Amino acid sequence: MMKHEDALKRLKNVEGHVRGIQRMIEEDKYCIDVIHQVHAVQSALNKISSMILDDHLNTCLISAVRGENPDERERVLREVTEIFEAATKV
Amino acid sequence: MMKHEDALKRLKNVEGHVRGIQRMIEEDKYCIDVIHQVHAVQSALNKISSMILDDHLNTCLISAVRGENPDERERVLREVTEIFEAATKV
Amino acid sequence: MMKHEDALKRLKNVEGHVRGIQRMIEEDKYCIDVIHQVHAVQSALNKISSMILDDHLNTCLISAVRGENPDERERVLREVTEIFEAATKV
Amino acid sequence: MMKHEDALKRLKNVEGHVRGIQRMIEEDKYCIDVIHQVHAVQSALNKISSMILDDHLNTCLISAVRGENPDERERVLREVTEIFEAATKV
Repeated sequence: MMKHEDALKRLKNVEGHVRGIQRMIEEDKYCIDVIHQVHAVQSALNKISSMILDDHLNTCLISAVRGENPDERERVLREVTEIFEAATKV
Repeated sequence: MMKHEDALKRLKNVEGHVRGIQRMIEEDKYCIDVIHQVHAVQSALNKISSMILDDHLNTCLISAVRGENPDERERVLREVTEIFEAATKV
Repeated sequence: MMKHEDALKRLKNVEGHVRGIQRMIEEDKYCIDVIHQVHAVQSALNKISSMILDDHLNTCLISAVRGENPDERERVLREVTEIFEAATKV
Repeated sequence: MMKHEDALKRLKNVEGHVRGIQRMIEEDKYCIDVIHQVHAVQSALNKISSMILDDHLNTCLISAVRGENPDERERVLREVTEIFEAATKV
């Protein structure tokens, strides 16, 4: 699916970025610059998570909410709240 | 509604907590202790947000997803992703 | 001190903002709008924390690092890392 | 240095973890599980940042604060606040 291609491509970029940070440490780059790069990776990962969530809401969640299984519906809605809680680390 | 009563009560606690932090600053308490209290307020606010989100998913979102209006459905789903993005600050 | 006046003023604004959110809930405002307001309060609190931290680094931390007490120095430096860890919730 | 060895090892783990998430997407694993794995990577990165910060405070920051150059000292202290602000995304 198109969305997944995009997420996959972004994850490959993240992988390259993480290797770049390894090199920065090996070359003993300034700590603060390293921390800023780690932070940039985290922003990229946030974007990836929100793309995957968006996709999830528009597929699985719609099916579950329209479906006949109340347990399934409850589970899918609860998972979204849990994802939000994990992101904000209540 | 029960959920809202709970959120309201928690917000009143947050308000009291914020006043307590004001007193800490007036009494020139140790900075690090003040910062930890600010952080505790933020955790409380995260919990409140996730309670309100949970409520929202189980009411408005279900209605919108089951409803006949595709624009409304799209809007409600997009709002959930936006809330997630704001929380993780992409 | 000037910095603390500013932090105090911002905390009073936060307190008013939190009361405003209580009213939103009492008036049954749209959940997503409430969550965005909670998020705005958290941004304001982040700014307050970083102001207090900045002040702390330029006073207590400088004294501790220049002081003769290695335990005190270690403690103050460790606290800064802990504040950072709490903020990023490792 | 020991600390850097540890950070480097953790970054290699993160790299492997990111490749694992790519596989999850290729194998069309459940979105919510993917998001939880992305979140786990972010926790690992937070830990890495705080290790590097801890190291920085105990080396560069101590030198700058004890040094004779006020601009250098100011810069190093300001960088710590900026790192904190970036982490909490004021």
